[in-house]
Amino acid sequence: MVTKRWTLLDTSDDTYAGPLDIVPADIEGSTADFRVSLRTLRGGLRDGVDVLLVESGEVRVALLPTRGMGVWKAWHGEVELGWRSPVRGPVHPKFVPLRDPSGLGWLDGFDELIVRCGLESNGAPEFDEAGRLVYPLHGRIANLPARRVELSVDGESGEVTVTGVVDEVRFLFQKLRLTTTVVVSPERCGFAIEDRVENLSADPAGMQLLYHCNFGPPLLSDGSQVVLPVAEMTPRDDHAATGLTAWDTYAGPSPGESEQVYFFDLHADPDGHTQALLENNEAAIGASLHFNTRQLPCFSLWKNTQAVVDGYVTGLEPGTNYPNPRSHEDAHGRVVELAPGESRGFSLALEFHPDEAALVAARAAIAKLQAGGKPQIHPAPVPGWTA
Amino acid sequence: MVTKRWTLLDTSDDTYAGPLDIVPADIEGSTADFRVSLRTLRGGLRDGVDVLLVESGEVRVALLPTRGMGVWKAWHGEVELGWRSPVRGPVHPKFVPLRDPSGLGWLDGFDELIVRCGLESNGAPEFDEAGRLVYPLHGRIANLPARRVELSVDGESGEVTVTGVVDEVRFLFQKLRLTTTVVVSPERCGFAIEDRVENLSADPAGMQLLYHCNFGPPLLSDGSQVVLPVAEMTPRDDHAATGLTAWDTYAGPSPGESEQVYFFDLHADPDGHTQALLENNEAAIGASLHFNTRQLPCFSLWKNTQAVVDGYVTGLEPGTNYPNPRSHEDAHGRVVELAPGESRGFSLALEFHPDEAALVAARAAIAKLQAGGKPQIHPAPVPGWTA
Amino acid sequence: MVTKRWTLLDTSDDTYAGPLDIVPADIEGSTADFRVSLRTLRGGLRDGVDVLLVESGEVRVALLPTRGMGVWKAWHGEVELGWRSPVRGPVHPKFVPLRDPSGLGWLDGFDELIVRCGLESNGAPEFDEAGRLVYPLHGRIANLPARRVELSVDGESGEVTVTGVVDEVRFLFQKLRLTTTVVVSPERCGFAIEDRVENLSADPAGMQLLYHCNFGPPLLSDGSQVVLPVAEMTPRDDHAATGLTAWDTYAGPSPGESEQVYFFDLHADPDGHTQALLENNEAAIGASLHFNTRQLPCFSLWKNTQAVVDGYVTGLEPGTNYPNPRSHEDAHGRVVELAPGESRGFSLALEFHPDEAALVAARAAIAKLQAGGKPQIHPAPVPGWTA
Repeated sequence: MVTKRWTLLDTSDDTYAGPLDIVPADIEGSTADFRVSLRTLRGGLRDGVDVLLVESGEVRVALLPTRGMGVWKAWHGEVELGWRSPVRGPVHPKFVPLRDPSGLGWLDGFDELIVRCGLESNGAPEFDEAGRLVYPLHGRIANLPARRVELSVDGESGEVTVTGVVDEVRFLFQKLRLTTTVVVSPERCGFAIEDRVENLSADPAGMQLLYHCNFGPPLLSDGSQVVLPVAEMTPRDDHAATGLTAWDTYAGPSPGESEQVYFFDLHADPDGHTQALLENNEAAIGASLHFNTRQLPCFSLWKNTQAVVDGYVTGLEPGTNYPNPRSHEDAHGRVVELAPGESRGFSLALEFHPDEAALVAARAAIAKLQAGGKPQIHPAPVPGWTA
Repeated sequence: MVTKRWTLLDTSDDTYAGPLDIVPADIEGSTADFRVSLRTLRGGLRDGVDVLLVESGEVRVALLPTRGMGVWKAWHGEVELGWRSPVRGPVHPKFVPLRDPSGLGWLDGFDELIVRCGLESNGAPEFDEAGRLVYPLHGRIANLPARRVELSVDGESGEVTVTGVVDEVRFLFQKLRLTTTVVVSPERCGFAIEDRVENLSADPAGMQLLYHCNFGPPLLSDGSQVVLPVAEMTPRDDHAATGLTAWDTYAGPSPGESEQVYFFDLHADPDGHTQALLENNEAAIGASLHFNTRQLPCFSLWKNTQAVVDGYVTGLEPGTNYPNPRSHEDAHGRVVELAPGESRGFSLALEFHPDEAALVAARAAIAKLQAGGKPQIHPAPVPGWTA
Repeated sequence: MVTKRWTLLDTSDDTYAGPLDIVPADIEGSTADFRVSLRTLRGGLRDGVDVLLVESGEVRVALLPTRGMGVWKAWHGEVELGWRSPVRGPVHPKFVPLRDPSGLGWLDGFDELIVRCGLESNGAPEFDEAGRLVYPLHGRIANLPARRVELSVDGESGEVTVTGVVDEVRFLFQKLRLTTTVVVSPERCGFAIEDRVENLSADPAGMQLLYHCNFGPPLLSDGSQVVLPVAEMTPRDDHAATGLTAWDTYAGPSPGESEQVYFFDLHADPDGHTQALLENNEAAIGASLHFNTRQLPCFSLWKNTQAVVDGYVTGLEPGTNYPNPRSHEDAHGRVVELAPGESRGFSLALEFHPDEAALVAARAAIAKLQAGGKPQIHPAPVPGWTA
C-alpha cells in the first residue's frame, strides 16, 4: 500500500488546503487507525490560528503551523499532556508583542506543551547599552508561521508524518530556517520530532535552540518526580539553591511560589542518547524526553509550582545552551556557529508511559545512564553556567 | 414568553456564530422591536474586527468584541453618539502597537464612544529607570479580544443583554478578567453596563479601570455644557488652569488647541450614585453618565476642542483613579487591590436626553446632588491629585 | 466605449469586493488586452495580504493594498522586475514589528519592487535622549492597509487605473493621507504612479517620502550599470567612499559585502523631469525611473551586492530627502512642510527597456540631461548631506 502525500500549505505557490479532514477512506484500501484535520480557529486570542490535529492509534498531537510548528497539546487515550496556562492559547502571533521593550512579550503567547525557543537567540531578554531590547525572551521562532506544511500517511501502518518549514529571517540580519518533521505512529507511545536548522545566508550565523517542554497535571502533582541521569548540576540562582535538596520532587500548587531553575549536564550513552523522565507516582503515569546530548548538550529544569490558576507547570528543556542572555552564552561557547548554508539536526521524542511497567523500564534506562558517574551537585550558582 | 439565549463566541469550545442576524421571528411569538447582528469587517485598519450591533427600540449600540467589548458608537433614533476620530476605526488590535517604546501606540486605535482603560493600569505611560516602557498609555484591555460573547433577548420586551468575557493575562504577571454585561432595552433611553473585574490569580493584584466616554458633535459644539455635581476639582496642569473659569463650557473647534483636563471629586447620593451631564443647548439634546462614586471615585474631564479633522471631542471619564502614571496613583492609594480570586463590580449607564424636558430633569437631578456642598475649585494643580 | 469603474474596497461603507476577476467580457464590447484580479493570500507571513494583480498588454503589476499600495512585483512579458528578498513576502503588517525598540522591524517586511518610505518620516531610525524609538526605519506607510481601492478600465485601450487611499494617522500626532493612482496600459512599457500626500489636519505637518525602488536579477548582475544625470554626488559614509570609482557599476553577488549608499543631486530638464536608468548590458534589458526633481529633489543609490540568498539588490530611490534620521533632514530643510489641508503631488513612472534600442534611447535621454553640467563627485561624505 502506498504512502499518500498532501501539501497543506505552501506560500511559494499559494497552496492552502484547509479546512481539511483526512481519514482512512482517503487512502484506497487503508484500514489503519488514523485521522488528520486542519482547522483555523476563530475568536479571541486564537483568531486565525491553524491547528493541525494528528491522530494515530492512541496518540493525538495538535500542531500549530501558525506558531512555528509548536506542539500545542498531545493526548494518549484520555490523558492530556500539556499544561493549563493562564494565557489560554493557542495565541495568534498578532497578539504577541514580542518586541515589547521589556523583552517579555513572549509570555503573552506561552501555552504550549512543546515550544521551541530560538533560533537566533533564546533565554532571558538582552538589551544594549541604551537599554533597548536586542534579544527578546526566547526568540522569534514560536511566533512565526510556517511557510510550508506537508503531510504523508502510510496507509498500512497509519503512521502520519508532518513536515513544516518556518523561516526566521530579518533582512540584513538572521536568515535561519527550521524544517521540522513530526512522526506519529500507532506503534509509538508518543511522537518524534526531527528538526533541522539551516543557515540560509552566505554569511556565518549563530543559532540557539531550546525545547521548552511543559507539563502540568496530571503528570505534575504533589509528589511527582523528575528523573535525570545527572553528571553535573547547578541551581540558576539563590532562590533555586534554597530548593536544592528537593530539586527532583515537586510540591503541590503553592500560591505565591516563584520559579526555580536548575541547569544540568546529563550523562548519555556512547551515541549521545539520553533520557529525562517526569513521573506521577500516584497515577503511575509519566513521560520521557529522548534526545541527544551531542545536539542538545544543555538541559534546564524549570519548576514553576505556582497555583493552578497561575500556571502550575514544570519545564524539561533540552537545549543547545542554557537560557541565559545570549551574549553570556556566546561568551561561554554555547551559541552554535553555522557556516554559510550549513545546517544542524536535532532529535527529540516524547514517550508517554501509561503504566507502572513502563515507568520501571524508563527508570531502569536512566539508572543505566547514571551509572556513568555520580552526580555532582553544586550548592550555589556556578559562574559561567549562570549569568 | 421565554428569554432566548445564543452563544456568539466561545473560545473554550471553538464556537463562533457569525455572521448572524437575530430578529423577532427568531423567537416564537415575539413582536418586540429588536434586532441583533454580528459582522466581521473587512479591509483597512478594521480588517477582522467583529462588530455586534444591537438595536432595541430607538437605541442602537455597536459593540466591539475584538476590542475588549468597547462601545464603538450608539444611536438614539437619528442621533449618533460618539465622535469622529481622525483614526477612523474600529481598528483591529493587530494594527495597534501598544508596546511602541513611546507608550503612545494606543492612540492608533482610539475611536470609540466608550473605551475602557485598564485593567492592570491606565493613564499616562510609565517607564523604568532605563527608559523602557512599563505601562503603556491606558493599558491593554481595549485591544484584547473577547474570549466569550453571549446574547439573550427577552422576546416580550425586546430587551437585549450581551455578556462578554475578556482576559487580560500575561504569564507571570497580571491575570485579570473583565466580564461585562450590556443591557439595551426599549424602555431605556440608552444602555447600561455592568462590569466585573476579577483577579484570576492566587496572588493579590492591583487593578485600574477608567471609562473613557467620548462625545463629539452633535452633543459637542460651541456652547455645549458639562454639568457635574462638583465637590472638589483641580486642573491637571497649568494649561488646564488657564481655562479654569470656563471649565464647564466648550468652545467650538479650534485648530491648534491643546487638550485641557480637570480632575474631580463628585458629590453622590447616600448610595453613591452620581450623574454627569453633557448638553448641547442649541439642539436641546444631551447625554448623562450614571455611575457610583464608591466604585468609581475619580472623575476626569477631557476637553479636546481641536479642529473637527483632528478630533473635536470631550471625554467624561469615571474611573477608579485619575489617569496619571500608575506608580503615582499607587502612591496615592488609587490602585484597587484585589485579593486572590476577588472581583469588583462597576456600573455605568449612558442615558440619552432627547429633548428639553429630559435635560431639565437631568439638571435638576444634578442640582440636587450639588446641594450636598459648594464646589471647591483649586486654581492650580493640586499635588497628589496630579502627577 | 465607456470606462467602467469598480470599488474594490471602501471601509467607509464596508465594501469589499474580493476575490474578484475582471476580464474584457466584463465590459460590453471590449476586446482590449487586460485582466485584473484581487486575491487574499493565505498562510505564512502573507496570511491576509490582499494582492491586486493588474495586467494590461505585456505588463503585469502586483499591487498590495494591505501594504500601503506598494508595488510588490511587476513583469514585462517573461521578465520579472523586483528582487528576491530573503524575507519572501508579501508580509502582512501584523507580522512586522515596526515599533521594535531597535527601530529596524521594518526589515521584517521588506520585499517589494517599489515600497514607499514615509509619510511622517523615513530613513534611519531615530531615538530620543532616553534611547526610546521616535521614528522607526522608513516610517509607517508601507505597513498600513488601504482604506479605499478603486479601479477603472478603459474598455477600448485596456488601460487600467487603480486608485488607493492610505491614511497614516495617530491621534494627536500625524494625520497624513496618501492617495495613489497607478496606471497600467498596453501603450506603456511599464506603469505610472501619481501620488498625492495630504495633510488632513488643521495643524501644519511635516512629511517625507522616498520611493525605494528595488531591483535584483535579471536587471542586476555582475556588470550592470546605473546611469544617472549627476550634478553632484556624495558617498554616504567611508565604506561607500571606498567604492567611489565604481559607483555606477555593479559587482556580482558577493557574500559578506556590506551596503554602499550614494546621495545625489541630479540634473533635470527645465520642467524638472529627470531619469535614472539601470541596465544589464549582457541581456540588453533595463529599466528607467522617471520623476521630477521639483517634487523629489534627493536621489539615493543603494548598492547591496550581497549573496543572492541574502538579497542581491540595488535601490534607486528618488525622495523628498536623503534617508538620514528625520531631525538631521529637518535641520537641513529636507522635510516638506504642509499647511493645514495642503497636499503635494509626486509622480513616478517605471519604464521597462526590453532591448538594445530602448537602452540606447534611454542613455541618450540621460546624456542630454547630463549636458547640463559635469558631475561633481565628492570623495568623502559631505556633512549636511550625510548624518
